[in-house]
Amino acid sequence: MVTASPLTLGVVGGGQLGRMLAEAASPLGVELIVLDPTPDCPASLVARDQIVGDFDDEEAIRELAERSDALTFEIELADPDVLEAVSEEYDVPVHPDPATLRTIQDKLVQKRALQDRGIPVPDFRPVDSREDLLEAGEEFGYPMMLKARRGGYDGRGNVPVEDEDDVDDALSQVSGELMVEEFVPFERELSVIAVKGDDEVATFPVGENVHEEEILRQTVVPARTSDEVRERAEDVAHEVLSALSGRGTYGIELFECEARSASQTSSGEQRDPRAAESEILVNEIAPRPHNSGHYTIEGALTSQFEQHARGVLGYPLGATDLRSPVVSSNVLGDVDEPESADLSGVEGVLSTDGAAFHWYGKREVRPLRKMGHVTLVGDDLDADDESTLTDLLETTRELTDSLSFQ
Amino acid sequence: MVTASPLTLGVVGGGQLGRMLAEAASPLGVELIVLDPTPDCPASLVARDQIVGDFDDEEAIRELAERSDALTFEIELADPDVLEAVSEEYDVPVHPDPATLRTIQDKLVQKRALQDRGIPVPDFRPVDSREDLLEAGEEFGYPMMLKARRGGYDGRGNVPVEDEDDVDDALSQVSGELMVEEFVPFERELSVIAVKGDDEVATFPVGENVHEEEILRQTVVPARTSDEVRERAEDVAHEVLSALSGRGTYGIELFECEARSASQTSSGEQRDPRAAESEILVNEIAPRPHNSGHYTIEGALTSQFEQHARGVLGYPLGATDLRSPVVSSNVLGDVDEPESADLSGVEGVLSTDGAAFHWYGKREVRPLRKMGHVTLVGDDLDADDESTLTDLLETTRELTDSLSFQ
Repeated sequence: MVTASPLTLGVVGGGQLGRMLAEAASPLGVELIVLDPTPDCPASLVARDQIVGDFDDEEAIRELAERSDALTFEIELADPDVLEAVSEEYDVPVHPDPATLRTIQDKLVQKRALQDRGIPVPDFRPVDSREDLLEAGEEFGYPMMLKARRGGYDGRGNVPVEDEDDVDDALSQVSGELMVEEFVPFERELSVIAVKGDDEVATFPVGENVHEEEILRQTVVPARTSDEVRERAEDVAHEVLSALSGRGTYGIELFECEARSASQTSSGEQRDPRAAESEILVNEIAPRPHNSGHYTIEGALTSQFEQHARGVLGYPLGATDLRSPVVSSNVLGDVDEPESADLSGVEGVLSTDGAAFHWYGKREVRPLRKMGHVTLVGDDLDADDESTLTDLLETTRELTDSLSFQ
Repeated sequence: MVTASPLTLGVVGGGQLGRMLAEAASPLGVELIVLDPTPDCPASLVARDQIVGDFDDEEAIRELAERSDALTFEIELADPDVLEAVSEEYDVPVHPDPATLRTIQDKLVQKRALQDRGIPVPDFRPVDSREDLLEAGEEFGYPMMLKARRGGYDGRGNVPVEDEDDVDDALSQVSGELMVEEFVPFERELSVIAVKGDDEVATFPVGENVHEEEILRQTVVPARTSDEVRERAEDVAHEVLSALSGRGTYGIELFECEARSASQTSSGEQRDPRAAESEILVNEIAPRPHNSGHYTIEGALTSQFEQHARGVLGYPLGATDLRSPVVSSNVLGDVDEPESADLSGVEGVLSTDGAAFHWYGKREVRPLRKMGHVTLVGDDLDADDESTLTDLLETTRELTDSLSFQ
């Protein structure tokens, strides 16, 4: 399995996820070649090589396949058709399955696929016209969330529709194919990092995500919620995994919300009257390691990145147990305009016991761009009570707030 | 501190220590260039670049300095004179101090430097002739250990002298300048990984080393010995640190032995009659991360490799606390002749909860060559009793024994 000529993993995308994948793959003896349009992309430092090219550049993906033992992607902008064709042409496996990528790339298709499997999701419908959106308003009530079906991330492409009068304004802010979802008044945003291996699956402990301006700021693990909710979230994650094909790490974003009444839903189905007080809805799935799983590097026995490499290559998966309570916090660009990235305040992070600093090596900082993250582990696995976690969250926030590009 | 143009660390040597240094430096935003004579050396995969050249190739070291913000080395074969000159010429700091490297490279000079500072070492003397060795035999008694002053590692260059009749045979097995040491009937071999930062020092928990054929096989942490011995070992490590100049990680090998009687020693000094039952002697020092500190990657809050990068660059040092009981075990070449490296049995390691696999990417396996290591962490920090550690040791041994190149 480990040979004199080490295995090479070809990765479409060379951002921070590719960089952390390379950091985790190296101890396994797995070398990365990344395909990314930006020279000196974050992953290029620790990868064996970078092919400079667009994510859907067929010639570049061909070269990647020719030089690799297996293919994967760390960005949803990868082209599933090209990956599928090249994988067949060069007889190089690609994971996750391009069909899964295709499903996930279109939020409407993704939601339908989940709904078809009986997996709980917010109510949704396609929007092909102004009339569709107005009808949805009557069905779901306001506010609702208008979404571009493709290409959105970090909240981009998502526009709240406050009322009937807001419909035209909302439509003017998004382009391409659209869908709309009911607004879910969630208690918490949760996520589960889940991994498909060769005939095995694994889920990491449930994380609680703190967003601001629709961008993930912190992940607290274990989530500060009830055991029942955590169990339900893990069950849902397993249901999601069974609906997806192809090995590797997936990020599953969830809403924890109050159980809706036992009365009929908008789609006419009966909800289970025995439903618990809380219910879990699937928000979105990422077919790759996820920002909310960065805590696994220090917090779990195996990281989500090592698991991705193991999964894609068909190696046995590692243990997902938590090593201690843990909080991760994103370092985002706090500038108004793009500029050369020059971060101050790192000494505070480095001097804090149990804090780990992760820098992505991006040469340019932009407003709210993800530049790095800080992870803080607690002392004692048993001290996972809410106050310990809240203390860790506060400290982690202070550490990231003390970092600045200005 | 972290800037758009990341800091570059120039490293003389690109073996497994350089590779693990690169893995640990990447999250800090620190990029490595390594100088090593072997193309595709282990560190080259995760380093930004490799300069192919000998460790003492002045032109190559010049190029390294020109492209780096700081210099260090991961092998004692680095040339202190060249490093000193180039550091001055290019105004690039080098750590640890080349003077320290010079002292450590000559085992006799190293022992004298320690003795001069009052640090306990085995009795020793230089050997310039057959007569010197015979005199040492009368002084120390047999057996004693004849050592090449320079260039030995993994026991190479060390020859036991069993009795007077063995003197000629022993001398025929070593070359170059020589020294001889009393034979220390130690209870345990211990080591402390110690770090010098900018006006601060740190030591990791004391490890217990298991050797076979004079090569390190396993390190058990914390060491299965008394609290008093552990404290004494840490004290000695601090004394050693204060005798060394230059920042970075050091590996300090120690013998735990029965306290010698309060009577006069061979050198005529009075030993302290209040000495505890055990005493700690310094065996050898490495001015770099050390094989017995690999456990820190999973076992401690900060790894010895990250500490080395932090130390060399003058960043604050990280916390050295243990996260759980931990054992590391070397994967050595089990072949009779050099051959292409093709390892089987890794699945067993990957399927064991809490086990981590580290592969060094060496293309050729040779008898007893260090090819990788396995680390196994325990569940609970409080379960550091001897039986837990012995169980971890047994499991780790079984895992490495199940790996084979044959």
